[in-house]
Amino acid sequence: MAININKNYKKIQKNYIFTQINLKTEDFLKNNPNIELLKLGIGDVTRPLSKNLVNIMKDALENQTSKNFKGYPPETGYDFLKNAVTNYYKTQNINLTKEDVFISNGAGCDVGNILNLFSNINVVVQDPTYPAYFDSNFLYGNKITLISVDKCNNYKMLPDNLKEDSYLIYLCSPNNPTGATLNKNDLKKWVTFALKTKSIIIFDCAYERFIEDDSPHSIYQIKDAKKCAIEIASFSKTAGFTNLRCSYTIVPKQCKVGNNSLNDMWNRRQCTYFNGVPYFVQKGAEYCLSKNGLKECQKNINYYKTNAKLLKACLISAGFEVLDTNNSPYVWIKCPKDYTSWEFFDLMLNKYHIVGVPGCGFGKCGEGYFRFSGFGKRTDVKKACEEIKKLQH
Amino acid sequence: MAININKNYKKIQKNYIFTQINLKTEDFLKNNPNIELLKLGIGDVTRPLSKNLVNIMKDALENQTSKNFKGYPPETGYDFLKNAVTNYYKTQNINLTKEDVFISNGAGCDVGNILNLFSNINVVVQDPTYPAYFDSNFLYGNKITLISVDKCNNYKMLPDNLKEDSYLIYLCSPNNPTGATLNKNDLKKWVTFALKTKSIIIFDCAYERFIEDDSPHSIYQIKDAKKCAIEIASFSKTAGFTNLRCSYTIVPKQCKVGNNSLNDMWNRRQCTYFNGVPYFVQKGAEYCLSKNGLKECQKNINYYKTNAKLLKACLISAGFEVLDTNNSPYVWIKCPKDYTSWEFFDLMLNKYHIVGVPGCGFGKCGEGYFRFSGFGKRTDVKKACEEIKKLQH
Repeated sequence: MAININKNYKKIQKNYIFTQINLKTEDFLKNNPNIELLKLGIGDVTRPLSKNLVNIMKDALENQTSKNFKGYPPETGYDFLKNAVTNYYKTQNINLTKEDVFISNGAGCDVGNILNLFSNINVVVQDPTYPAYFDSNFLYGNKITLISVDKCNNYKMLPDNLKEDSYLIYLCSPNNPTGATLNKNDLKKWVTFALKTKSIIIFDCAYERFIEDDSPHSIYQIKDAKKCAIEIASFSKTAGFTNLRCSYTIVPKQCKVGNNSLNDMWNRRQCTYFNGVPYFVQKGAEYCLSKNGLKECQKNINYYKTNAKLLKACLISAGFEVLDTNNSPYVWIKCPKDYTSWEFFDLMLNKYHIVGVPGCGFGKCGEGYFRFSGFGKRTDVKKACEEIKKLQH
Repeated sequence: MAININKNYKKIQKNYIFTQINLKTEDFLKNNPNIELLKLGIGDVTRPLSKNLVNIMKDALENQTSKNFKGYPPETGYDFLKNAVTNYYKTQNINLTKEDVFISNGAGCDVGNILNLFSNINVVVQDPTYPAYFDSNFLYGNKITLISVDKCNNYKMLPDNLKEDSYLIYLCSPNNPTGATLNKNDLKKWVTFALKTKSIIIFDCAYERFIEDDSPHSIYQIKDAKKCAIEIASFSKTAGFTNLRCSYTIVPKQCKVGNNSLNDMWNRRQCTYFNGVPYFVQKGAEYCLSKNGLKECQKNINYYKTNAKLLKACLISAGFEVLDTNNSPYVWIKCPKDYTSWEFFDLMLNKYHIVGVPGCGFGKCGEGYFRFSGFGKRTDVKKACEEIKKLQH
């Protein structure tokens, strides 16, 4: 006699990849206290927030000392931010209602929490992948079909060889970790597949603002996508909100499974398990979608993109096989021959003092690959480029 | 062919009780635009935050514009806040390690999210209850045993007549909605029961700071409770954080199901589905656990308690059957004979312009009861007392 635990917790690998990286780097620093590491690992922003943004949030906080004090935020977000989001979509010629928009405290949270709406489903995830797609589904006991992406398919997951069935399909474009971006045609294929098979797409567009070619920023740029796609976006990478915690998820009223409205269900989920995002964080997010805010955010995005481009260029010069895109803060490379991802991680750490992410941390098919992040400091990137030049490859 | 939805969403009642109350009051105000309602309904704080608290948070925000910029918070909380929490417990002679402490964005969230650790379990919930216990378990498809509380059992849920089995047991003391408080003896009974039956207790102590008799503020005041109890606490009601979103959940290292550490599992859950609480919110929470912060918070708590006491006294004078406690911001009364909860709600709204919460919103056994909240404004409470005096009862 004992209460049933969720047995999937026993089966899942215990340490999150970034925890392992932290342990290794901490260990290195303990033995080499005078060496400054070049941090090109975790996909976390580093640029300070703008004074305008912070002043708006401070004013909103100041309100909390007055009779304008606000209690519980609305579970699904304040109307002012929902309206700012729908206006942002309007600039892409996409019409949403504010009821389609759910403000949340992180894309990573919603990616997993959305699973509460389903039961024993088949999920399609690319390999390598952002680990949360895999882990959250594994912990829910869902059946996961992994589709490998590599040079042969241009690092793009497409439905071309996927058995026709109903799935929950995770798409992330521009992709974390690879940076590969699905173009309009690719997304049309997925929407057609989803409508035909009654599948639902989770479109994670956390990096949409990094796109510089004509790839869609939103899946709703594809006809009828509202019937079969949920879009998860975030202020984390676009506006530097990784610490502030604010994101938005679009579940269009038209998005249904049979006659079950996923919009109604997600609304119920959020009102039951979630209590909303602080007012001043939402005021900050609203500013980031204003004309000035967008301009300020783009400056930081360009900074990170320049980092990625510098890294990409020097890795290509050094003879590495590099996924060639300008739409991403990440640079995805093949490790030198005979190196596993962790072996290459150790080499980079111990010999060149560069911290990246071993590709195997993103899935089996990431083995033999390595991810550099452009979210670091320019000085680190430049020093890393000098080091990479030394690599005999 | 279609992907499986979680069918429990179809079976659950669609509207949350507070949504229904809002609709009714909005409707009333549309027809009576000149009447100011006395809001004694939702359990949301109304007192402004202290300037000291807000200044600390503003300074922490200002940091985000500098080279001290912080990215992702640690998923389970910053050490400084975990240490403040363990120090707070030390004042109650309870020793916790910082690994036992998980900082989160709301007790209401954790109450539901904890269910991801279990599978097809039997849950014990009192009736009437805080709706999230019931709803979140219902949506997970768990079997819910409801134990009714009323005058006959002093409004206390106890294990006396509970069939011996392994359960997840939700205790909330001081209770929302009733205000009933479990004393040391009551909690001993539960811990004994849980250890014997290999059950796990979820102890929700969101209102612990409202206790003024010698009832335990934490279940860990009971011997061996760490082996069988998770404690969920919050800054919402104690420090006015309903908008700021910060809470802490204690999952002691000793708390196990068989040889499965719930601490490890919850850690994995949070690192997979959650990305932490903003730095400056945690800095604010840390202040609220400091000597000065605790003092400032207590002032507001006393304000709400005085409200509740004023309401209680006038309801007793008016002949109502009232649950008599000084440990709660809520006042739980029996409706006048022949009134259902909603009928009494309508009477209070339409004739006396008072908004409370119909007891039936908290479960079947809440039918015929009504909850007033002391979280409103003193002026509203005083006016409400004048109105209640008019009630022929």
